[in-house]
Amino acid sequence: MSDSGRKPPEANPTATVPKVVVSRLSLYLRELQQLVRDGQETTNSTQLGELLGVTAAQVRKDLAYFGQFGYPGIGYRCQELIVEFKRILGTTQPWGVALIGIGNLGRALLRYRGFASQGFRIAAAFDVDVQVIGTTVEGIDVYAMDTLTDQVKKMEIKLAMIAVPAVAAQEVADRLVAAGIEGLLNFAPVTISLPDHVQTVGVDLAIELEQLSFAVVTHGRKT
Amino acid sequence: MSDSGRKPPEANPTATVPKVVVSRLSLYLRELQQLVRDGQETTNSTQLGELLGVTAAQVRKDLAYFGQFGYPGIGYRCQELIVEFKRILGTTQPWGVALIGIGNLGRALLRYRGFASQGFRIAAAFDVDVQVIGTTVEGIDVYAMDTLTDQVKKMEIKLAMIAVPAVAAQEVADRLVAAGIEGLLNFAPVTISLPDHVQTVGVDLAIELEQLSFAVVTHGRKT
Repeated sequence: MSDSGRKPPEANPTATVPKVVVSRLSLYLRELQQLVRDGQETTNSTQLGELLGVTAAQVRKDLAYFGQFGYPGIGYRCQELIVEFKRILGTTQPWGVALIGIGNLGRALLRYRGFASQGFRIAAAFDVDVQVIGTTVEGIDVYAMDTLTDQVKKMEIKLAMIAVPAVAAQEVADRLVAAGIEGLLNFAPVTISLPDHVQTVGVDLAIELEQLSFAVVTHGRKT
Repeated sequence: MSDSGRKPPEANPTATVPKVVVSRLSLYLRELQQLVRDGQETTNSTQLGELLGVTAAQVRKDLAYFGQFGYPGIGYRCQELIVEFKRILGTTQPWGVALIGIGNLGRALLRYRGFASQGFRIAAAFDVDVQVIGTTVEGIDVYAMDTLTDQVKKMEIKLAMIAVPAVAAQEVADRLVAAGIEGLLNFAPVTISLPDHVQTVGVDLAIELEQLSFAVVTHGRKT
């Protein structure tokens, strides 16, 4: 994978961008892609704000972290923003992703259609179950967990999704680190220890529900 | 469901707590539950910080949003923090949750073991597929989508998870709102329009990968 698609813009140091702004960047990208599918060529901060439920001023402030994108009298060009946002997010070039664990969640991830359109392709899957090792699931080769380090290294995979039980997650992560992985998306409900050079995003589905619960009870208290 | 388990603490208005702090509250809760399973009765901000990869000062600052929890010379009592944090998050009383859509992701959610331990129970599932309507999947009754509003109202369900294709998500959300739902966890890769009194948390798995990609490319740029 060349570095050219991975270079953040030079206007602002992206290392200081708040996490919530980065996650809104993904949401803006989704809406822009939908606008283009609907045949719309340009948009503006008011429309983008309405689509995300934030103010137009917030949209402009968010975008200012990454550069200058608007045109006087036109607004934003949708396609141009899409290209820029993908460049900032590092998804201009597709990533090959390893999937570890093909239980129910792993299979749902293999079948999930949202990855490919955003620049992610599951390149290999790994499991301990001898019934599935050596087969293909949803067109993806399933390898033995024992071969994880070698295979990930050989395929030069840099991102991985961990969908194994919590007790196995740290060991899997250690093997992936040994294979030179740079980022882990962890679905196991446990915090994994990683060296500083490996990035991690944890997805705990019960936590999402807890955050929703908090929003509901807090809102109920206000009204 | 009684209101007693849903009352946030009186010390600070929780409406002003930053979202990242609320999500760390869930992570602290996970670690505290693990500490208790490991037989540990007390902890402190240094240990909690290490477990989450934040400073001890950050832990104390986070907790100060919700009240006073520590004891001089002892630290925090794990079990007491667990009770308090569940109260703050609104999960003291278990929530019944409706699941809409039992495709691959829906089935993975039905089988997901992390919900029950955190106070969430899938109470009913809904789908359009006549093959599954009237059956039980993972012990949960599957109802026809047509009956969604009536059934959710009748069962007094206040939280729902939407795991239907993007094109169907808004219509499903509208029906849930009509049924008196208060919070929606949305897995469909689309932003849903909702009235102000309904809370929503969106889970877009490709967005999680994008955030990971951003972290990897930004880190690569720094080092």
